[in-house]
This record gives sequence, structure tokens and C-alpha cells, in this order.
Amino acid sequence: MTFTKSEYEKRLKKTKVSMERQGIDVLLITDPANMNYLTGFDAWSFYVHQLLIVMKEEEEPIWVGRGIDVSAAEITTWLDSKNILSYSDDHVQSTTKHPMDFVADVLKEKGQGKRTIAAEFDAYYFTAKNYLQLKKQLPNAKFVDGTSLVNWIRIVKSDKEIELIKRAAFIVTEAMHKGIEKIEAGARECDVVADIFHKQISGTAEFGGDYPSIVPLLPSGKKTSACHLTWTDEAYEEGDPVILELAGCYKRYHSPLARTLVIGKPAPEMEDLADVVIEGIHAALDAVKPGVTCEEVELAWRHSIEKRGFRKESRIGYSTGLNYPPDWGEHTASLRPGDQTVLKPNMVFHMIPGIWMDTYGIEISETFLVTDNGCEVLANVERKLFIK
Amino acid sequence: MTFTKSEYEKRLKKTKVSMERQGIDVLLITDPANMNYLTGFDAWSFYVHQLLIVMKEEEEPIWVGRGIDVSAAEITTWLDSKNILSYSDDHVQSTTKHPMDFVADVLKEKGQGKRTIAAEFDAYYFTAKNYLQLKKQLPNAKFVDGTSLVNWIRIVKSDKEIELIKRAAFIVTEAMHKGIEKIEAGARECDVVADIFHKQISGTAEFGGDYPSIVPLLPSGKKTSACHLTWTDEAYEEGDPVILELAGCYKRYHSPLARTLVIGKPAPEMEDLADVVIEGIHAALDAVKPGVTCEEVELAWRHSIEKRGFRKESRIGYSTGLNYPPDWGEHTASLRPGDQTVLKPNMVFHMIPGIWMDTYGIEISETFLVTDNGCEVLANVERKLFIK
Repeated sequence: MTFTKSEYEKRLKKTKVSMERQGIDVLLITDPANMNYLTGFDAWSFYVHQLLIVMKEEEEPIWVGRGIDVSAAEITTWLDSKNILSYSDDHVQSTTKHPMDFVADVLKEKGQGKRTIAAEFDAYYFTAKNYLQLKKQLPNAKFVDGTSLVNWIRIVKSDKEIELIKRAAFIVTEAMHKGIEKIEAGARECDVVADIFHKQISGTAEFGGDYPSIVPLLPSGKKTSACHLTWTDEAYEEGDPVILELAGCYKRYHSPLARTLVIGKPAPEMEDLADVVIEGIHAALDAVKPGVTCEEVELAWRHSIEKRGFRKESRIGYSTGLNYPPDWGEHTASLRPGDQTVLKPNMVFHMIPGIWMDTYGIEISETFLVTDNGCEVLANVERKLFIK
Repeated sequence: MTFTKSEYEKRLKKTKVSMERQGIDVLLITDPANMNYLTGFDAWSFYVHQLLIVMKEEEEPIWVGRGIDVSAAEITTWLDSKNILSYSDDHVQSTTKHPMDFVADVLKEKGQGKRTIAAEFDAYYFTAKNYLQLKKQLPNAKFVDGTSLVNWIRIVKSDKEIELIKRAAFIVTEAMHKGIEKIEAGARECDVVADIFHKQISGTAEFGGDYPSIVPLLPSGKKTSACHLTWTDEAYEEGDPVILELAGCYKRYHSPLARTLVIGKPAPEMEDLADVVIEGIHAALDAVKPGVTCEEVELAWRHSIEKRGFRKESRIGYSTGLNYPPDWGEHTASLRPGDQTVLKPNMVFHMIPGIWMDTYGIEISETFLVTDNGCEVLANVERKLFIK
């Protein structure tokens, strides 16, 4: 296991305190990051229904999943075997049996059928069908929304978690340098991404990499206006701008990073835009320290770019750390107007204030750790518009 | 775009026929594979809420997503700009505004607020919150389950789709050979996976690879009993069994493949088990031809292994092709008892009849295409227990 049993127990305790505060008797956790956070569970089995049941009176959570994944739960979690339960395989993608029928039976058997049950209503892997099926099978339970309950506990990291994120930052530094090195006119996008991926996974001689929750995003040319495109097998051309957004990942902990590069001479308006973004990041990072709110950090960015005549509607960052596909964001605090989350030491954010114009865009980002007095930028890649 | 506009139109027409048959006026599609299938949309933006609205009276679907992803929709789909709509960024992971509020407004504006609306209730990206929010905003609509409606249309592929899957099979053949070549005592798991990934993404000189929807699954040693574990940065040891399950992917179309390897001399019971699995696959592939049902294929496998004293509870395969994380399966037909789906030419299945004992497992699989007279195995990797 990545953490000591006592660290997992502390996390569980905080979860129960939060449940108590919200009047929740039973919390169903389907977010794979939250499952990992509380028990260590780590397998690519989230493509079938699985969850944790946290009951306020029971010491240990119960893991429920598919039969062939029981062994993964036994290997990767601290849970007692008696708390690892599985539904039979004919529940998988069936139109007649649903895994939540099994979960409902477990809840009834544990005397939880009439309790206040929270589930992560807006998590990727808690489907509408899960909700409807549980409601049907447990007509006397009260269902409430527990979205992000555990995510909010995750927002302040332990020192051990920060250690893992720093390893991820080391990996992303190397992977970004590799990508920048390999991009040139005539190189195929897929070959550059293959080299980046190789670095992300092989890591360093001392420690290897885990799979990031998002694949490298590498739009090029006019496609830089579309930040979430992946890659093609076409070759780069002289004059192409290329955006690289990628993360290092170590034991499911992420450190994301973005840079923008131009093959050949950049257009003057692109250089200007890069300057604006870099100045804005600088201003925003300067504003970071414990006690400051997320919206105050965004405001520092906003003031900086407004002086240069720019506006940006989308948020400029979010809390990051432990996660599984499809996202490395934690779905809690965002650096945007209205977000009054107060920064505390050991929070980690990906500040990615991209600006996309109609036919090109600039993305330059930093992942930072909130420290006692300010912040620490985690990766080590020059903050500039790269020119090849 | 990967396909001609007329191929997309045919798919949409089939979707509308199926909607008509099921009494559906409006279909909301959140499954990224189904969004791609109908419009070509391809970006890693499924980590925020997005969907297609297919209305029976309207020619084109409407794409709804986040503002910064509009450009990706314009670049990758055949949709008219007027049918690409976006919600403002303050809807993203907000506790006060939900993207489905915006979708409900669009539906009302289009006069669809009192219709029979289907959504993919059990798809990964249609959350319980989506359902509850739409129901709240559209109290006069009737909501019904449209899970897998489009998936069932996808099950029979066009010749062009088969071409893409064959390219993916070419990539997985190379990636599997690379993995088998690299695994040896002393090599780190992460370094082997890095080489596999490199092959998956760089592809061949003629065409590059896309990201498979599942990362390479490479449990080793005793962990081979847990089929969905990924990898560590530990080194392989003499005597370790290793399972490799991976896919080639080309323009989002997959061809998965599994093999098992032993470093050094395998235990006699492992060699026996591999023989049982290989015989069983042979028997099952022999049974494949148009007109045969999925459960009949599984029965051929079952009879074969029962003769050798084995039983297996989980399904032995599923339809595969176009997909996005977290799965390359299509969630339609499964090779298992009770599945009476009749095989037709141009269906593609991943037959993966793994057997996992308490401390080791054997996984050997094939992806096959149903042809006019039988089947064609797509990858080209020897079907045996590899010994290094």
C-alpha cells in the first residue's frame, strides 16, 4: 500500500465527520479516486460498476465489485476479506440484472435499508441508472447528494501525498522537455506523443511513472484553438504552433503542465499573447498564500491581462492531485470569480490560464503547492513561448 | 473527418428508426463513442458534461458542450455551426449551476419540453445528477431509458470501420511482440509498458496509433490472479508469470489482445491451464459463423473446458470497436449463457476467456471479425503460453 494504514484511517475518520455534519448515515462512493483515497484500491475496473459503502456505525468500508476484481481489492486495499463483496458476472452490462440490485441487498442485510444514503450524484461513474435502481430496491431509504464530499477532504494533502506529487512533477518536467525536443517540421505528431508517453511511463531510474488520467493533449496549427484535441499521424509543418498539455503521474498523483511552442517564427500577435499570459501567471502566483481566496488569485490574473486589453471567461485553474481517467482535476475549488475557498498550506492547484483566439491559442501553465508563506511551482520548465 | 458525410447520415437515420420504434422523440447522447459515431466529434472533453440532442423531426443533431470545446466540435464534426451550442464556463463543476439547466433551456426553446426524452441512463457520463436536474427543469417531459440504443446500431460495422479495426490489429500485433520481447528478469514493469505504449502510439510508418481506451494491463507474479491491475516500477523476477492485455487503436477503433508469458520454467499446472484455454478458444472460434448465437459460441468453449475439468463463471467476450476511456467494449452482445444475439457478418468481438486461479491466471484472447462463412482472427501473434 502507498500509505500507512493509519493515514487511511485518518481519511476515513474525516469522511465520517463530514457525513455526520451533513446528516448522512451511509455514503456510497463510486469515484475511483475517492475509493483509492479511503482504501488504496487501484485497478482499471471502474469500467464496470463498483463502489465503497461507508456506514457511520461500521469501522471498515465495504468494497463491492465484480467477481474477477475481488483479487485486485485483496491485493491493493487494507480491507478485511469479509468486507470485499462481489456480484455475479451475469450482472455485467446486463439488461435484466443490475449491480445496484446486489448493493441494495447488501445494504438491507446490514440494516441500512431505511437510512439516509448519500451517493456521488454527479461523479462520472454514478449513473442515472444506479440511482434509479437503488431507489427502486430501497423504497424506504432517503437518498441525498454526496458529490465531492470526499474530494473536499482530499484538497489538503498530507506530506506524503506532496512527496508523490513532487515525483509526478519531476516526471512531467522530463516529459515536457522530451516533447519540446522532438517537435519539428516533418516529425509526425504521433511519434512525438509516443516519446512523451514513454517518458511519462518509464519515469526515472529511481521511480517509474503511472498512467496520467488524461493523455497528452497536443493540438497543432489552427487546431490550437481547440484545447482538448489529442493528436493525429500528420507531420508538423514550418510555422505551426503546438500546444502541449500533459501530466506526470506517480502512484495516481498528478502534476500537470502546459507549454506552447512555435516551429519557426511566431506571428507577432502570438508573441504578445504569450507575454500577456506569462505576466498574468506571474501576477496570479504572486497573489498565492494561505488565507487568500481562489477568486482573489483569479482577480490578480484578471487585472494583469486587462491592462493589456484581454479578457478570459473560463476559470484559470483547479485543485489537482489523486485521480483516475477521465480527469486529473479534483472537482472542488476553482480559481475563478465567486470561488471563496481559502487557500491553505498543502493544497495543490493547476493554474492553466489559456487564452484561445479564433485560429490560435496560448496555453502556459504551472502546478503549484501552497506553502506556509506563498507557493512553490512544482515543475521546472522555462516559462516562455518555445521557438524551434 | 474519418467517414463520408453520407456514412454519418446513414447512422443517424438508423438511430431515428430505432427511436421511432421505441417511441422516443428526443435522444440525449452522452456516450463519447456514440457522439463520435453520429457526428465525428473527437476530443478529450468528456470529463465535463457534453451531449448530443437527436430530435426526431430535426435533420441534424445539436452538440452541447463547454465554450472552450466549441472549436473542437467545429473542427471534428460535420454539424452546421448553428447546431453547436455551449454553456458558459461558470457551469463547470459548479454547485450552483448545472450544464443540464442549459440543456433543458435548449430543449424548451426547440419545443421539446413536453416530449418523450430518452437518455443513456447507464452510460458512464450520464450521471444521476444529470437525470435529476433535467427532470426538475422539464417537469412535463417523460424520461425513458435509451442506454445502448446507438451501441446496438454500432454492432454491425461498415467495411470502412473494419478497415480501421484491421489497422488497430496491426498495431496491437506489433505492440504485443514488443512487450513479449522486453519482459525479462531484471526489467522494470514500467519500462516494458513504456515500450508498449510507444508502439501503440507511434504505430507504423504508414499510419500512427490513437490512445487505446484502456491502458496496458500487465499484472505479474501472484498479481496475475487480478486481471485489471496495471503496472508498478518493480523489476520482474525469474519464474514470474506475466499477463499482457492491450489494444491497438486507430482513429478510436480498437483491436484488443491478451497473452500470458512466464519468465523461466512455468509450473506444470500453468502449462496445462494454458492448453485448456487454447483448446477452448479454438473450439469457440470454430463455432463462429453468421446465424449462430453468442451463447452458442460460449457453449462451445464451455464444453471444451469441461472435458478438462474446468468451469468459468464470467463471460468470455464482448463486442468491440469504437470507444473512449474507460472501456473498449461496446456494451451490447456478450459471449455468455443467455445472450441470444445472432452473429452477423462485420460484427467484431474480443474473445477473452481468461481463467484465474487463486494465485495465478491465464489470459489468452483473440479479436475476431464475423465473416460470411465463419470468422477471421485479426491480430497475428502466436496463440501459446510464451516462455522467456
